Order: sequence, then structure tokens, then C-alpha cells
Amino acid sequence: MRQQRMLIPTLRDVPGDAEVVSHKLMLRAGLIRQLSSGIYSYLPLGLKALQHIQTIVREEMDAAGAQEMLMPALHPSELWKASGRWDVYGPELMRLEDRHGREFALGATHEEVITTIVKDEIQSYKKLPVTLYQIQTKYRDERRPRFGLLRGREFLMKDAYSFDRSQSGLDESYESMYKAYHRIFTRCGLNFRAVEADSGAIGGTDTHEFMVLADIGEDTIVHCPSCQYAANLEKAVGQLPAFADTASKQSGQHAEPQKVQTPQVTSIKQLSEFLHISPKQIIKSIAIEANGEPAIVLLRGDCEVNEIKLKNALDGTEFTMLSEAGIQQIGSKAGFIGPIGLQNVKIIADSSVIGMQDAVIGANEVDYHLTHVQVERDLAGLAYYDLRNVTEGEHCLTCGHELSFAKGIEVGHVFKLGTKYSRSLGASFSDENGASEPVIMGCYGIGVSRVLAAIIEQNHDERGIIWPASVAPFAVHLLTVHVQDEIQMELSTEIYKSLTDAGYSVLWDDREDRPGVKFNDADLLGFPLRITVGKKAAEHIVECKERRSGDQYELTAEQIIAHCQTFFQTGGRSSHE
Amino acid sequence: MRQQRMLIPTLRDVPGDAEVVSHKLMLRAGLIRQLSSGIYSYLPLGLKALQHIQTIVREEMDAAGAQEMLMPALHPSELWKASGRWDVYGPELMRLEDRHGREFALGATHEEVITTIVKDEIQSYKKLPVTLYQIQTKYRDERRPRFGLLRGREFLMKDAYSFDRSQSGLDESYESMYKAYHRIFTRCGLNFRAVEADSGAIGGTDTHEFMVLADIGEDTIVHCPSCQYAANLEKAVGQLPAFADTASKQSGQHAEPQKVQTPQVTSIKQLSEFLHISPKQIIKSIAIEANGEPAIVLLRGDCEVNEIKLKNALDGTEFTMLSEAGIQQIGSKAGFIGPIGLQNVKIIADSSVIGMQDAVIGANEVDYHLTHVQVERDLAGLAYYDLRNVTEGEHCLTCGHELSFAKGIEVGHVFKLGTKYSRSLGASFSDENGASEPVIMGCYGIGVSRVLAAIIEQNHDERGIIWPASVAPFAVHLLTVHVQDEIQMELSTEIYKSLTDAGYSVLWDDREDRPGVKFNDADLLGFPLRITVGKKAAEHIVECKERRSGDQYELTAEQIIAHCQTFFQTGGRSSHE
Repeated sequence: MRQQRMLIPTLRDVPGDAEVVSHKLMLRAGLIRQLSSGIYSYLPLGLKALQHIQTIVREEMDAAGAQEMLMPALHPSELWKASGRWDVYGPELMRLEDRHGREFALGATHEEVITTIVKDEIQSYKKLPVTLYQIQTKYRDERRPRFGLLRGREFLMKDAYSFDRSQSGLDESYESMYKAYHRIFTRCGLNFRAVEADSGAIGGTDTHEFMVLADIGEDTIVHCPSCQYAANLEKAVGQLPAFADTASKQSGQHAEPQKVQTPQVTSIKQLSEFLHISPKQIIKSIAIEANGEPAIVLLRGDCEVNEIKLKNALDGTEFTMLSEAGIQQIGSKAGFIGPIGLQNVKIIADSSVIGMQDAVIGANEVDYHLTHVQVERDLAGLAYYDLRNVTEGEHCLTCGHELSFAKGIEVGHVFKLGTKYSRSLGASFSDENGASEPVIMGCYGIGVSRVLAAIIEQNHDERGIIWPASVAPFAVHLLTVHVQDEIQMELSTEIYKSLTDAGYSVLWDDREDRPGVKFNDADLLGFPLRITVGKKAAEHIVECKERRSGDQYELTAEQIIAHCQTFFQTGGRSSHE
Repeated sequence: MRQQRMLIPTLRDVPGDAEVVSHKLMLRAGLIRQLSSGIYSYLPLGLKALQHIQTIVREEMDAAGAQEMLMPALHPSELWKASGRWDVYGPELMRLEDRHGREFALGATHEEVITTIVKDEIQSYKKLPVTLYQIQTKYRDERRPRFGLLRGREFLMKDAYSFDRSQSGLDESYESMYKAYHRIFTRCGLNFRAVEADSGAIGGTDTHEFMVLADIGEDTIVHCPSCQYAANLEKAVGQLPAFADTASKQSGQHAEPQKVQTPQVTSIKQLSEFLHISPKQIIKSIAIEANGEPAIVLLRGDCEVNEIKLKNALDGTEFTMLSEAGIQQIGSKAGFIGPIGLQNVKIIADSSVIGMQDAVIGANEVDYHLTHVQVERDLAGLAYYDLRNVTEGEHCLTCGHELSFAKGIEVGHVFKLGTKYSRSLGASFSDENGASEPVIMGCYGIGVSRVLAAIIEQNHDERGIIWPASVAPFAVHLLTVHVQDEIQMELSTEIYKSLTDAGYSVLWDDREDRPGVKFNDADLLGFPLRITVGKKAAEHIVECKERRSGDQYELTAEQIIAHCQTFFQTGGRSSHE
């Protein structure tokens, strides 16, 4: 393509509202333009990269035996009511009425639609297993769209759904998608980790998110540098190092709990300062209410409750903080709650509390705490759970190595759905004996447009984008320094033809512009190889620059094709020998 | 692909609500399924055909120098208000509000969005001309969705927009798209005509619709079998054969108009019977009101008014029938209106009235008409327009041959927009002298999903679809008669591998089903070539059947690849020699 007439509106300045690198560079390089908050148009270069990602996704999904189809974006509300999500989904689900007043949702995801199709079209075990996918626009009315394509309201997604007759079948389908996702993100040139994620109340143990490591990521990943363990913070578990408390050994190891006056000391921080002890020696007691019943949650003083883990411990029940009146009713006082002496209250303890010695708890009396509490002696019979966020310094439960923390952008998610949708929407099959069973489902998503942004987040420098060859809008940027120069134009024409004949995609900068502007734009657009036709055109010599390595060298025009073959065979990352 | 596990739910019976062949066959062959009225899912086979059409469209648009991009479906209402279409478009435009109460339209078309992008990104004549296109889902809340993909509410469209600095530039861009459309529809295997269409009040003389000839078409096409002339009924013009009226020559050629009593005779049919004359001897007078002014429209009695032509003759003003009170006010009586003796009424005559002799008109008096009216003498000075629908029997204005009528499905439309959107949305460029001018636009649409249905409408028989090779979901249907037979399976496996290695797309019917069911399904699915592995597998002999010609013959397994090469080189229409 010739650049003169192509719509590639590069910008020198960064638009004010763009916060993250990928958003800034996609605007500056003329890949996208915003139409409304969280809603973008893809200009020609942006669409080319997006299409290359789609091609990779299609190839790997097809190779994994998944079948592509395409479902509508307009969903009749009846389907979402049948699954129960019409009410649950909240304002993120965009809704409208047609001219006859019938309600529709704009598809935020397609479980309802695909399950209905499978219900109608697959009745026998003979047609199972099957995995269906689509690449399709999704709509989610995010409260706060931001970061360009990373969190939009209209975005491109690949969503796949597997249908199996057994749990072991689901395990195989899941494994197949899991491996395909590895290949997809690898081919896209991403540095990513598959992390264990929480599956919520739906069930299923093997739920993974694919996280692209990036400082601007909105998710926290906990991973072990020594073994393969990785999980998101919602799900991550670790081993707290034991708190070596010298003081307790000397003084109160065998003492009875003792009530001490702690006037107006209601927080862990205040208490630790007042008693000159570590927060690690305090047991934090949090009063909650779930299903109308009060409960006390115990954690070591330096730990934070993970709400998802707590909800899971409550069998998926939603919970709220217990009111002051509620605290009174269980016989305690806000700020001075403790697990000893309460009645008719369920106590749920995090594993960080196990074996604490000489600990401090609230005395359920204003301005008093209890010291010298021995958990094994004074709080015997506690039910322990994993309720806390893993913290820096915890150790890997698998190998014992200290865990690392990182930020990640979620680009993919594989999930064992089970029978949630097949039961509510009635998708069942008959087995060899004619017995009817609900189909067992998995769902698998990739944020295709988010992948595009994540690639740029990980592949850029201060001058612009550095495309992986697999997704670059063009492989080669051919740049003619002076388009008025007949010799340069003649050689450029020749090179352009030979490259395109050889199957390389080439953007030819044939603009009448200052060379500096053109070189800057070439770095900003960031195609793997730049070939510059300049002063030495008469000698048939061009300059070649590799965008990623920065290597620059001269080639004769006749060497170009062979050089491109070598360069792109190695994924555009090799440097010139 | 192996058919056993593929989602191809063929149906023996035709679903009740499907009226047209393409809709019936797309349901029966498992290409699509309805989710809601006018809203469909594409199952794997349907999507493959749709993607092949998209590929053809892309290749030809790119070859014509158009650049692909992708715009959102959610449009902020401000844009549609700026163009004036928010109010004009009516209930066909689907609308919704986001969580903050901001109004959006679901894009029915993208003039507003693309013009806004071009306004922001193109300021100089140096970046013109440019043609941009997208393949994208459109939403139109049709009052009566029907005929499957032919008139849906969510459908796939290719829309292109050209931007030029001059009218002659627009002419070139238009011509380029016009030619690309010819190539696209030809490659899709369609029998089509490009017909002149009415451009309405927007202007532009070269507006064409691409019509696929089909009896179920909702549009009427008038075309000349002898020359290239073709137009839709809204636009078509013709020459009425003169009415050879022997009676008038004998009796009233020179007589004065004469008032005759015609009691309760108010229609053309009644009048023609009462007076024993042809409707061709009567002048029909229709009283209308436009811009608050009354007017009389005259046509020969056997002609029908074409509302679009009449509106154009009124400079684009909308009109209504004149009320009975209005008819009284201009001094006439309903049922007896005539052009003589009225005052302060504009008279607009269709060219069919020119030179009528001894004609009959209303006398503007209840139960009376005037006979012996000579148009040239008694209605001198009339302004003549083309106001009627062309009727069977009219002759081509270009070559004089009698015109033919046909029904058509509109699959494409090319349109010279001019500056309607660039003016209302402020898209202008500066020329060499720095003067600012609005860009001159054209727009060009193809109903991609409608093309799919139109192809089937034209390519089928009583047994099923007959795909053109260019868009067939698979090129070859490999059918194993008895999958329990090891020799058959072994040979099938071998053939499947050699065909796919040679680059042919193959659906392999490996189902354990009765041969009759499999042969019927193969005809229904309609891929160009069927290769059946049956009894003669041990001799390496297969049966080959061409779906279109019906030719059947034996081949050795070793001959298959060479045979496919010959067959598909000629577009899958050749027969076996």
C-alpha cells in the first residue's frame, strides 16, 4: 500500500485523556479513534493488526477441533430471564426495546444463546463432544471505561463453549482449549502466565485466567519463581512464615488470659502501638452477617480478608458487616470484639490464626482487650479456612519458595461451567440407554481487542510500537527519502514490486514530507523491518533497519528478498549477521 | 472436517414459517437458525459460505484501492442529530440509553460516523481522494422482517464511503466501485443487473442498484432486452405506444368539448364501461395537496402515478391526497375532477397525456364528464413531466424495443451523496490555495448476508442447494457408504488426506447412518463435487457426482486430484469428459 493516500493519521502529541502506553501509542500511530467513551473505530492499520490476531485465534481454535459459528448481538430478554441473569447482571448489560416494545439485551456474553442452540440441535450422545466458537462484538456498559481498548464498552471477543457428556469429557475439552490458548498468546508475542482463578459459586476446580504481565494491569498475580504455581490474588494461597515471638516465650506462654485496659484503642494499629507488640501478635475479629446470622471472622492482625474466599467459606452466601446493634446483640462492643465469651455466634478462622501463642484479642467490653491468649488452649475446636489475601513474604505451598507478586492484564479465561446453563435452559442429551442428562459445559474467552492493546503494552519503546512480526499491520516499511528524486522512486518501485510479489506486506512511504518526519513515523508505526531508499539509490544500495534490535545496515537491492526470508523465518527477531 | 461431530443439523421437513426457497433451504441444510424475528445465528456451514463472500468482497474492494476499517455499532445520538436523521429515520433506527442516560443508536448505516472521522483526520486535498469501507453488522428494526436473511433486523453489510475534492473525482470513485460490484456479484455466481435507481432529493444522476433476478424479489426491474437499459420501477421511463383510436377519427376529432351526464360514474373503469371507450381515451385527474397548495395531476386513464416521480416533480415536497373539502374549494367535486374550469390550481401532467385526442375528463360537476377534449387545443400550455409507472408494452427510450419486466432482490447500491453529510457534519478540506471546501461523498453498500440468500435463491433444485464453487462451504463432499467397512474407511482416509493436502476443503460424511440419508443430505448441502466410497473401494474405484450437472461417473482414487483440478479450474461448472 502507498502511504500517501492511506488513512494513517499519526499524531506528534499524546492526547490528554490517554493514561497508558498502549492507548497513547494506538492513538498516536493512527490505529484507533474514539467515537464515545469506551467505543472505538479501528482505522486501517489498527484493523490489520486486529485481523492478524483473529487469524491466529481462528487457526488455533480450528486446530483444536472447535467449530466456528456466529451468533447475533441482539438477545431476546426471555433467554436471560430463563438463565436468571437478566436481573443479576445489572447495569453492565445494555438493554433496549424494539418497535413492538419487546425487550432485548446487547450480548455481553453468549451462554444463553449457544445453550439454546445446542438444546434445539443436539439430542444424542452421538453428537457429543462438540466445541463451538465465534469471534464477535460484545457490549458491556462498564462503569468506568478506560485505558483505550483495555476496558471498552464495545469490544471484540472470541468466545468458545464446549459441550460434553461427562466430567472427564469436560476435562479433556478444557485441556484442549487451555493448550490452544498457550499457543495463541505465544504466537501473539506475549509474555503471559496462566493463573488459577476463583470459580465462584458455579463450581469447577480448574479455572484459569491468562494474564499478560504489565505494570498497568488491573489484576494482581501471585506466582512462584521456583515452580509452576501461579494464581490471581482472589485465589492465591500461601504459607505464612511462623511469627518468631521471643517476648511470648519469656513472659506469657503459659499464663491465663488477662483483661487489660486499653482506653479508646479500637484499631490493630493503635493496639499494637499501645501494647508495644507486633500486629502479628493480635487476632483481628471481624463481625459479619450472612443469611441473617451473625458470625465472627478471625485473622492474624497483619492479614486482610479476601472477600471472595470468605464468601466461598460461607457456601457462596453474600455477607455484610454486622451493624452496631447486631454487635450489641451478640454481647460485644464495636472496636473490642473477640472470640471468647460470645454466644450463638459462628466463628470462622483464617489459617493464619493456627497455633498463635500469647495473642491479644478484644474483650467484648468497651476499652478492654484480653492478652496471653493461647489459640490451641483458649480457642480449641475452631474451624479453619483460607480467608486472607496472600501477602508478600508468604511461601509457596507447593515448593516452599517465597512467592512473587506481579500485575497482569487478563486476556483470556477458561472456565468449567458444568450444568448451570444446561439445567436452567433445558439442554440435555440422551445416552446409550435413552436416559436424559444435562450437557456439561465449559466456556473459554479471549479479549481479542484487548490482546491488541496488551501486545503494544509489552512491545514498545520511547519512539513507538515494536510489532511482533506475527501481528504487525505490515511486515516491511519501505521509505523513499526524496520522492522527487527519479532514481529513488524508480528503485523504490522495483523493490516494492519484488517484495509484494514475494508475498510480503509492504507499506510504502511515498509522501512528500521531510525525511525526519518520515523516519519518526516509521519508528512510531513500528513494523519489523524498515528499508530506506535514499542517496545510494543509484548504486542500488538501501538501508535496512530492524525495529526491535535497532540494528541498521546496508543491503543491495538484490539482497533484500533473501534477507527478508531469513529475518521473518525467525519471527522477525533475528538480527543481521 | 468430519461430519459426525460437526454441527450440521439438517432437517427433512420445511419449517412452517419459511416462505421462500433460500430461507427454507438455509434452515433445512443447517446453515442458520432463528433466534428472534429477523435475527439469526450462522451455524458452521452458513458461516463458511458467508466468510467466502466476505473474502470476495474484500479482495475486490482492496483491488479497487479502498481501505478497510471497522466502526462501532453504538453511535452517540449527537451525530445523528447533527445530520438531522435522528428524527427522520423513525422506528427502524434502534435506540437505547447507557447507564448514564446518554442516548445511542445501533448503527443502521455509518455516514455520520465515517464523516466525523474524515472531518477530524483529513484536512488537506493532498490526502484526497480516499475510499474507506468496512464489513460490519447493521441493525434495522424492520416493520416486517421476512424471507430469512433477505430482510432481517441484524445483518451483515459491506459499506464503503468515498471522499473526493471534485464532482469529477466522485465520478471516478463511483465508476471504480461500480466496476468492483460487477466483479463481486459475478464471482459470487449471481445473475444480476445494475439498474438505474432514483436518487431522491439528495441529488446525483448516477445512482444504481444491483439487482439479483428472482421471482420473489420485492423490487420491480424494467429492462430492455435489446440494449443495456435497466432501471427500477421508481426510476424507469418508457415510450407509450400511441393509442390508435379509430372512433375519434370518425366522430369527434374536431368537435367542441361536450358535457355528458354520467350518473354515479366516478371511477375510470365505470366511465370506460358507461361510455364504451378504452381507459386510454380518458384523462385521469388526481387532486393532491403539497406545501398547503392544491394541485391536479393528469395521466392517461390506464396509467398509474409513481409517487417518487411525482414527489421529484414537486421539487421533493411531500404530498397528500386533497380532502373533499379541498376539492370543493377549488371548485370541483370528488369523482368528477377535470382540468378545465378550475382556478388557482397548478396542473401537472404526465407525458402520457401529450397529444390525446377526443379525450374524456371530469366536468367538475356531480354526475357529469366532458367528452371530445383535444389536449393540444383545450389544455394548451400544460407542463409535462414523467409521473407514471412504466407499464408492460412501453418501448425503450434508447432503442425503441419493447421493455421487459422482472422481479429483483437488491444486493448492492452505489450512490452519489454529494455534500449532504460533509456540510451538516462539517467535513471540509483546504485546496492548493488554502480555500476550504466540503468534501464530496459517495456511498456504496452490499448486503453481504442478503447475497448469501440470493445465491441460494438462484442456485438450487428440488433436492437442495447447488453452491457456486466460489462460495461453497466445502468444495468436496466425501461420503463413505458403510463406515463399518474397513476397506471403505481406509480408502476414504487416504482420499481425505490427499484432497486436503492438495488444498481442497472437504467435508467427510463419516456418520453411521443409512446410505439414503447420507445421499439426501449431500444433495441438500449441495457442495460442487461428491465423491462416494462404496462397494468398489477394494478396486480403488469411487463414484463422482457433480451437483450442478448431475453427471455421475467412476474414477480411480488416483485420478481424483487431477479431476478436481480440471473441475475447479473451470469454476466447478464443467462436466466430466
